[in-house]
Amino acid sequence: MALSLASVLSKSEDVVGSDHSSVVSINLFVALLCACIIIGHLLEENRWMNESITALAIGLCTGVVILLTSGGKSSRLLVFSEDLFFIYLLPPIIFNAGFQVKKKQFFRNFMTIVLFGAVGTLISTGVISIGAMHFFKKMNIGSLDIGDYLAIGAIFSATDSVCTLQVLNQDETPLLYSLVFGEGVVNDATSVVFFNAIQSFDLSHINSSVAMQFFGNFLNLFVSSTILGVLAGLLSAYIIKKLYFGRHSTDREVALMILMAYLSYMLAELFYLSAILTVFFCGIVMSHYTWHNVTESSRVTTRHAFATLSFVAEIFIFLYVGMDALDIEKWKFVSHSPRTSVGVSAILLGLVLVGRAAFVFPLSFLSNLTKKSSYEKIDIKQQVTIWWAGLMRGAVSMALAYNQFTISGHTQLRGSAIMITSTITVVLFSTVVRHYLICV
Amino acid sequence: MALSLASVLSKSEDVVGSDHSSVVSINLFVALLCACIIIGHLLEENRWMNESITALAIGLCTGVVILLTSGGKSSRLLVFSEDLFFIYLLPPIIFNAGFQVKKKQFFRNFMTIVLFGAVGTLISTGVISIGAMHFFKKMNIGSLDIGDYLAIGAIFSATDSVCTLQVLNQDETPLLYSLVFGEGVVNDATSVVFFNAIQSFDLSHINSSVAMQFFGNFLNLFVSSTILGVLAGLLSAYIIKKLYFGRHSTDREVALMILMAYLSYMLAELFYLSAILTVFFCGIVMSHYTWHNVTESSRVTTRHAFATLSFVAEIFIFLYVGMDALDIEKWKFVSHSPRTSVGVSAILLGLVLVGRAAFVFPLSFLSNLTKKSSYEKIDIKQQVTIWWAGLMRGAVSMALAYNQFTISGHTQLRGSAIMITSTITVVLFSTVVRHYLICV
Repeated sequence: MALSLASVLSKSEDVVGSDHSSVVSINLFVALLCACIIIGHLLEENRWMNESITALAIGLCTGVVILLTSGGKSSRLLVFSEDLFFIYLLPPIIFNAGFQVKKKQFFRNFMTIVLFGAVGTLISTGVISIGAMHFFKKMNIGSLDIGDYLAIGAIFSATDSVCTLQVLNQDETPLLYSLVFGEGVVNDATSVVFFNAIQSFDLSHINSSVAMQFFGNFLNLFVSSTILGVLAGLLSAYIIKKLYFGRHSTDREVALMILMAYLSYMLAELFYLSAILTVFFCGIVMSHYTWHNVTESSRVTTRHAFATLSFVAEIFIFLYVGMDALDIEKWKFVSHSPRTSVGVSAILLGLVLVGRAAFVFPLSFLSNLTKKSSYEKIDIKQQVTIWWAGLMRGAVSMALAYNQFTISGHTQLRGSAIMITSTITVVLFSTVVRHYLICV
Repeated sequence: MALSLASVLSKSEDVVGSDHSSVVSINLFVALLCACIIIGHLLEENRWMNESITALAIGLCTGVVILLTSGGKSSRLLVFSEDLFFIYLLPPIIFNAGFQVKKKQFFRNFMTIVLFGAVGTLISTGVISIGAMHFFKKMNIGSLDIGDYLAIGAIFSATDSVCTLQVLNQDETPLLYSLVFGEGVVNDATSVVFFNAIQSFDLSHINSSVAMQFFGNFLNLFVSSTILGVLAGLLSAYIIKKLYFGRHSTDREVALMILMAYLSYMLAELFYLSAILTVFFCGIVMSHYTWHNVTESSRVTTRHAFATLSFVAEIFIFLYVGMDALDIEKWKFVSHSPRTSVGVSAILLGLVLVGRAAFVFPLSFLSNLTKKSSYEKIDIKQQVTIWWAGLMRGAVSMALAYNQFTISGHTQLRGSAIMITSTITVVLFSTVVRHYLICV
């Protein structure tokens, strides 16, 4: 059994999408998803565990099993694919977050959220980039140019909205939830602009006109993405209301809502906008307008179907990150110099802490100046929680790291391999350790 | 615009899954799906149209537009992929059919259904194979061996359960619906055994031991597939009831039901069973047991979410078949000898009619002998409807034809190209014409 499994799995590495080996992978993946749900449910009474930690753990275990059965050749069922992540898994999660978000709370803090997401991300990126440049130049970790350092800053400034959803509770701490989650969404728009800027601007000559252009780009992207999402939501509401869809069929209403939300995401991708921002606002508009125009059974169905989709996608991501963490190819480079690798990970973790502190406290202070009632102000305890809760780095960081440092899922250079493994270390460490610290 | 679209589309032909071109394809596809739903809804009052015909028509129009903008090079957004069809689109359709089927009616006619699906398919396959051998040998259509002829018989004996669902109404004609749809499901098991037999047996020496082996294989496959589906359904019911899933979360229940149903389908694929049969019985058991153990909101959600998934998958298939029908590569071969191609299509259509008549009337007679009350007997008018309603050939025939006559989506030989184009002609003709005849 072990042998035949190994031979099938080593095949699946080469030709994903081929006949029988992909069937084996899908079977294993779906079975593991079921296991995560059941075990996550059984452990729910236990405050130390939840579905995402379970999924991470099961993913790691599966990785070990595959690694052993394949004789140390492979630990993955599928090569990490950005497409899979950005085209299929992320849209339902972010859409559902917009669909279920408490709108009143979100819009009351809108300016603060944008401040955190835009200015804060830039500050954090700057701190991490400069810090990385300072420390890594003295270490022997292969060649990294200024673009790579800025990319490192952007990667480790990406607050993971997916993880945030798992940790903060919207009903218990609505203010913190809306601030940290909203920041994560706006953060994405900043990242898109930033990544484009790294690739298109001449980074050796940064002057005020480049900075102005950068600011203009961000504003343009932010406004266009939001408008696209709002328009898609309003259009779905108009069509469903005007054409009396519910008169005939619940299924059509639900199908149309899902398809139009997905269309808004893909259109944003098409025009190089921030798809996360678009689908988030589409979710908000749909829950505010479209949802009230559909039949009663459509309301129940959409509320739960969207939540289910998002739930499955989240578990899928955690399972995947856990499984991918053990990929042998990347660790090969690292095993020659374990100390360097541990050092890099530790430095990055430290920089993440400092970079986040560098904007949360000053910006909270600024934000408090504009608020009159003390009730609306962010007190120091809440500031610490915001700093702390947004530290988690997750699937988005992983995807960005893969984008910058690999060529079609394979790691080629020593420096890139160290960066990928450090990203994994930081993601695993921040997710697991933070989870336990919050439980305590 | 037209030019840039064309260049992007011609790229998407080469590298599906690459970055921006696949985003363009997905956008177009999702937008077309939305258009199909809206237009299908607007035309609902019109008895001449429904979503599937709309999807076929829109698919054909899109094919023409792409063909013109790409300068006659391509009419497809994606290369036809069996994986896409059998792994993602078919499971929700068949599962939903099992989930929503009227169980009483289905099991009352179980023996007749199996008779039609198993014996009937074999008769039909035999008639079409022998007929094709007889007629095609005199025509100049390239080399086809005995395996190809038997495959043609199997391809054109595959009743399309997807189309049947669209034409017959479960509430108006429950007996006919259960007979024709059930036949389509059992038919799949026969096809799987038959295709395996074609590939593994020595076809020049058919004797009684081979026939016995064939019969044994069918029985084994039928029973194993059914048991697998029933077990998956019962297991889901047991887990959800025993662990009190609903106590905590509706989303988990729904996610578990979807994942376990899909797991049963993929397990059947893994063991080379009839996945269609498995997931169909899984749907029946889930609607009979699992569904009664979940919370009220889960019931509403599953009923509508499964129907929506199935609905979108159906439209997707019809849109795809319409778009794929104009693929230039296949018609190149045919354009040299249009007469031969029309002749082949006409002969095949005739053989389909005869082959179906050759088992519907005799087997109905046999089935009537076992029934005592005249109420349960299939009268001659119903027999004609069964003959007629099961004539439709659809996406399953297309997928089988691609499986037998192409290598990874590309047609190489003249004879194969003619077979593919004839399949498309028969599918389009039977779907559209039959639809209009039924309306009259």
